Amino acid sequence: MVIVMSPGSTAENLDKVQEKIEQAGLVCHLSKGEERTIVGVIGDKSKIANLEMNMMDGVEKTLRITEKYKLVSRDFQPSDTVIDVGGVKIGAGHLTVMAGPCAVESLEQLREAAREVKKGGAHFLRGGAFKPRTSPYDFQGLAVEGLKMMRQAADEVGLKVITEILDREDMDIIGRYTDVFQVGARNMQNFQLLKALGRAEKPVLLKRGLAATIREWLNAAEYILSGGNQNVILCERGIRTYETFTRNTLDLSAVAAVKELSHLPIIVDPSHGTGRWQMVRPMARAAVAAGADGLIIEVHPHPEQALSDGDQSLTPKNFFAVMDDLREMAKLMGREL
Amino acid sequence: MVIVMSPGSTAENLDKVQEKIEQAGLVCHLSKGEERTIVGVIGDKSKIANLEMNMMDGVEKTLRITEKYKLVSRDFQPSDTVIDVGGVKIGAGHLTVMAGPCAVESLEQLREAAREVKKGGAHFLRGGAFKPRTSPYDFQGLAVEGLKMMRQAADEVGLKVITEILDREDMDIIGRYTDVFQVGARNMQNFQLLKALGRAEKPVLLKRGLAATIREWLNAAEYILSGGNQNVILCERGIRTYETFTRNTLDLSAVAAVKELSHLPIIVDPSHGTGRWQMVRPMARAAVAAGADGLIIEVHPHPEQALSDGDQSLTPKNFFAVMDDLREMAKLMGREL
Amino acid sequence: MVIVMSPGSTAENLDKVQEKIEQAGLVCHLSKGEERTIVGVIGDKSKIANLEMNMMDGVEKTLRITEKYKLVSRDFQPSDTVIDVGGVKIGAGHLTVMAGPCAVESLEQLREAAREVKKGGAHFLRGGAFKPRTSPYDFQGLAVEGLKMMRQAADEVGLKVITEILDREDMDIIGRYTDVFQVGARNMQNFQLLKALGRAEKPVLLKRGLAATIREWLNAAEYILSGGNQNVILCERGIRTYETFTRNTLDLSAVAAVKELSHLPIIVDPSHGTGRWQMVRPMARAAVAAGADGLIIEVHPHPEQALSDGDQSLTPKNFFAVMDDLREMAKLMGREL
Amino acid sequence: MVIVMSPGSTAENLDKVQEKIEQAGLVCHLSKGEERTIVGVIGDKSKIANLEMNMMDGVEKTLRITEKYKLVSRDFQPSDTVIDVGGVKIGAGHLTVMAGPCAVESLEQLREAAREVKKGGAHFLRGGAFKPRTSPYDFQGLAVEGLKMMRQAADEVGLKVITEILDREDMDIIGRYTDVFQVGARNMQNFQLLKALGRAEKPVLLKRGLAATIREWLNAAEYILSGGNQNVILCERGIRTYETFTRNTLDLSAVAAVKELSHLPIIVDPSHGTGRWQMVRPMARAAVAAGADGLIIEVHPHPEQALSDGDQSLTPKNFFAVMDDLREMAKLMGREL
Repeated sequence: MVIVMSPGSTAENLDKVQEKIEQAGLVCHLSKGEERTIVGVIGDKSKIANLEMNMMDGVEKTLRITEKYKLVSRDFQPSDTVIDVGGVKIGAGHLTVMAGPCAVESLEQLREAAREVKKGGAHFLRGGAFKPRTSPYDFQGLAVEGLKMMRQAADEVGLKVITEILDREDMDIIGRYTDVFQVGARNMQNFQLLKALGRAEKPVLLKRGLAATIREWLNAAEYILSGGNQNVILCERGIRTYETFTRNTLDLSAVAAVKELSHLPIIVDPSHGTGRWQMVRPMARAAVAAGADGLIIEVHPHPEQALSDGDQSLTPKNFFAVMDDLREMAKLMGREL
Repeated sequence: MVIVMSPGSTAENLDKVQEKIEQAGLVCHLSKGEERTIVGVIGDKSKIANLEMNMMDGVEKTLRITEKYKLVSRDFQPSDTVIDVGGVKIGAGHLTVMAGPCAVESLEQLREAAREVKKGGAHFLRGGAFKPRTSPYDFQGLAVEGLKMMRQAADEVGLKVITEILDREDMDIIGRYTDVFQVGARNMQNFQLLKALGRAEKPVLLKRGLAATIREWLNAAEYILSGGNQNVILCERGIRTYETFTRNTLDLSAVAAVKELSHLPIIVDPSHGTGRWQMVRPMARAAVAAGADGLIIEVHPHPEQALSDGDQSLTPKNFFAVMDDLREMAKLMGREL
Repeated sequence: MVIVMSPGSTAENLDKVQEKIEQAGLVCHLSKGEERTIVGVIGDKSKIANLEMNMMDGVEKTLRITEKYKLVSRDFQPSDTVIDVGGVKIGAGHLTVMAGPCAVESLEQLREAAREVKKGGAHFLRGGAFKPRTSPYDFQGLAVEGLKMMRQAADEVGLKVITEILDREDMDIIGRYTDVFQVGARNMQNFQLLKALGRAEKPVLLKRGLAATIREWLNAAEYILSGGNQNVILCERGIRTYETFTRNTLDLSAVAAVKELSHLPIIVDPSHGTGRWQMVRPMARAAVAAGADGLIIEVHPHPEQALSDGDQSLTPKNFFAVMDDLREMAKLMGREL
Repeated sequence: MVIVMSPGSTAENLDKVQEKIEQAGLVCHLSKGEERTIVGVIGDKSKIANLEMNMMDGVEKTLRITEKYKLVSRDFQPSDTVIDVGGVKIGAGHLTVMAGPCAVESLEQLREAAREVKKGGAHFLRGGAFKPRTSPYDFQGLAVEGLKMMRQAADEVGLKVITEILDREDMDIIGRYTDVFQVGARNMQNFQLLKALGRAEKPVLLKRGLAATIREWLNAAEYILSGGNQNVILCERGIRTYETFTRNTLDLSAVAAVKELSHLPIIVDPSHGTGRWQMVRPMARAAVAAGADGLIIEVHPHPEQALSDGDQSLTPKNFFAVMDDLREMAKLMGREL
């Protein structure tokens, strides 16, 4: 940590600042400039993390040098994490595709979706049984019945299952049917849920919050890892900006950033990321080119009848076209699809 | 709902659109323009709400005319809601002040804080016993012990209690000690929590999410009201923008917007809204001038020792100055403080 | 400046960093921590400002301690600037109101507007003769004819004139008719225009850019002051965020921030700031409560016939109501209106 | 245009609305719903564009159906525009690379840069002679001397020249040396400059504004096309969001959006778009995968000595690696590099 003293601060102010630092078991390094004195704080990282200096008299501002997250950082683990979900690998060298409808609507719909996405080459069936919806009057999902349908439809064609968890109370029941827990954007900082998932035995896909910085996102992942669950997949799904043409602004530079800062795999959701099915194909290609480890894509056998997010769902035919592109991109990027 | 057909759409496309609308028990009104045909959909609001037309062939876009929220709207209830918390009123004609430390740290700290904010004229003691923190290595709160301290400190000086709930499992235990449940910005769309609070017997203060639109915020409140709990207080606490000088951008126009759209009371949090204690005083004044029904302010007996958010906490002395200003502003705005 | 060396940097990297700093005539202070070495750079501020260290091998990041702007800062001039426009004062202790239509449409319209805003108590007539419009097919303004109408209408009732300048070539002709030059949000970083206005003999009102930080805004003002023109008025007019209910998000905390960082007067534009005439009244009150030195408000004798921005324009009757509020607010804040 | 009447509007309000529409030579279509009456306005697009209805009594809101831009739209010209700059093509089927230093610093620097980027396979030499800088104390560029150096360095190795224009007064002098005019993000809505460039005989590269919507950007391009200059290249260079890890958020979905809405070529600037040289390579690949027609990349022979933007400049060696990737991507996307 670096502490910048204000131009008008007194010698006494500085003494108190040094005193507080030393009492915390840390060491000060002073640099006296023409206009300002700067205090460098050295010592144990966790002690520094809890030092609150901004309110001290004479302190103009403080600058943090090191990040709080640790287990998720590439400093901590230089090599890429690869997660194995019953033989399907997620991470370095692989390109994993998860596809299916936004919401589970019926067994018939799911079976059709599962057959089609399997045919296209997907590894996972996605679908929401517990749905977070903006309005209480929107369709809220089929709950446990939906989970059972997911499992059955996936098993019939040999796909893995990923589905969203909204509440830690549902961890056991969802865990019985899913292979991977999905934490949605709205719950990225639902810390109670993250702590619970830190004790789960199945991997967690952690979507980036609507307005979360990359730093906050990695700290959220740290909650899960620090609880003991090392199998976290990050998922970029678009951030909220002023632009209204797209539903969100898909931030593909987050893929490159995560690859630099962390060893965790990162996949991209071009369906929510753009909110327009026409954009899924170019953005899926771009995601892989940026270095993504996989894609999660909304596919609905009949998007015009979807109970939610029809605008951003692909028909099976369009999904096949996306997969053809992805196979070429995977080859170019040296990834196995 | 208004449906805009694309310039290249066919007569058959239009027939199918009309057919789908009529099958839903709704009525179409056609307007054929030079370049585009527009279809107005008329009929039962809830049926329209569930109509998904964007994926139909030939449809360029759809425009929704009416909002999904209902119970929170001023159309539904024209007169202002006034909430009575054991004699302390929140809403029209009143100016309610909630003050105290960000986190509960010790009984001694709380008692000192309670004495001071009572002396300044506050009605509520605020303080977090369960803390949502960005990093798992930050102070996480004293939990139930903290709740007990809150209650005791508040009772000793005659203040009401408001504290944050992070998880629906904690509703009973927190409900035993608090007068008002606070839902934080990160949980504004934790729909399971909102549904649970819809069954609570105590009022709920619902903070606006970091990147929530006013419409999403009102829909979140609708979750609580539609569950049966009519006592919701909205709280503007700053939104996330590109500006870094302040921690958040306090959106005071949201106060005016809420007053126009809803009958619910709205208060303002200038401490989180700016993240800088120096700004709390001018922003507290401005909030009342904009029409706010109250303020929630961080006050710490010794901000330089605070375990969290010291930068934005007022000393008791500075809090008294804010309250002096607010008394004058209240008089001007015809509110009782 | 503080330079943070990366954990993997070598002794040789550090040598080169020190060498470059010393060659620039500056001094290094080293702090060796457990994980990272930090280099403090001390010496002449302008030399430091031009030091580019980020690309040096072994450098993780650099942190700037001091701002680049100087003449606009409160460090440089502690007391508030008060600008005198032919007897009308802008700054400390005064509350200055500028009002009128968005665009100059006709002499008749302007005379009516001038009479009404004068009657309400405004000091300036505002109106655009040169209009920046999003589309080339929108009304572009009456140009020089509009300027003459402005001057005539203002003179007839004893108001000052403020109007927008879009291009440095127009400085002479506009300067003949206006009392204050307005630089719009889209031109805040039109540096050629700012440099030209640095040589103007009339004051400049500098609107904050749509997505400008407070720091960038003050740097833009520095262009004008460093050119020799000390009479700059800042104007907060709303920033662009994700919220769509309002046209922009009026950032009143910018008023408090500017008061802390600079000696320049700051006024607020609640008309563009919200884009909704219903919100002008509460936001005008809030602006004064936050510490603003004045307001600029759109008033149109017949908003429903306006050629631009009718939605956000007040009728004269509504303007009078705003002025009644402002007179009370001015008294409370110790300002002369 | 669709006009939504408020629930409390009267028959007389509706009459006046209809009257105003008919007086403008347009036709009304009424749809009376349960809660609201909707008025569809039909007729000449340009008449509708100038209709201001929001301030009419009884009007709740208006919704615009059609865009104001015309010449830039794909409706107007379905086939892709290809721009020929002395034999170098920009648009469909081509992948054009512009590279060079942020600022022109010396002839020696430029010659070295030109040799290297030519060797890597670039088509254009980029470099700023007139620099827009946040602070007046930053390096402002070498002006005309810089232009001459650009031309000489480019000619020696057979590259085209692109350089920024800040002011319409400089159009002639810059036009003497450059092949393409660049309009920077800060000037995207400098309408006087756009109008002047509408009369220029050389192509214009129009960067997206820092906080410009895609719609505003296309309207800005319309200014140039409607002035008579059809040769406009759009350039996505990152938008401003809350994220601070990157300098801007590169919005690659804008590439797909522009391809859908317009026939104009679009290139991407991953250097400004991310502000970090390490991210240029993955983002350049992703841009091509998303459908971009080219890239503009900062390359400096010695980034650690650059007078501006050293952080985001590639060394020649890193640039060669990017070009190797782009050649593979071009092949995959069916483009000629």
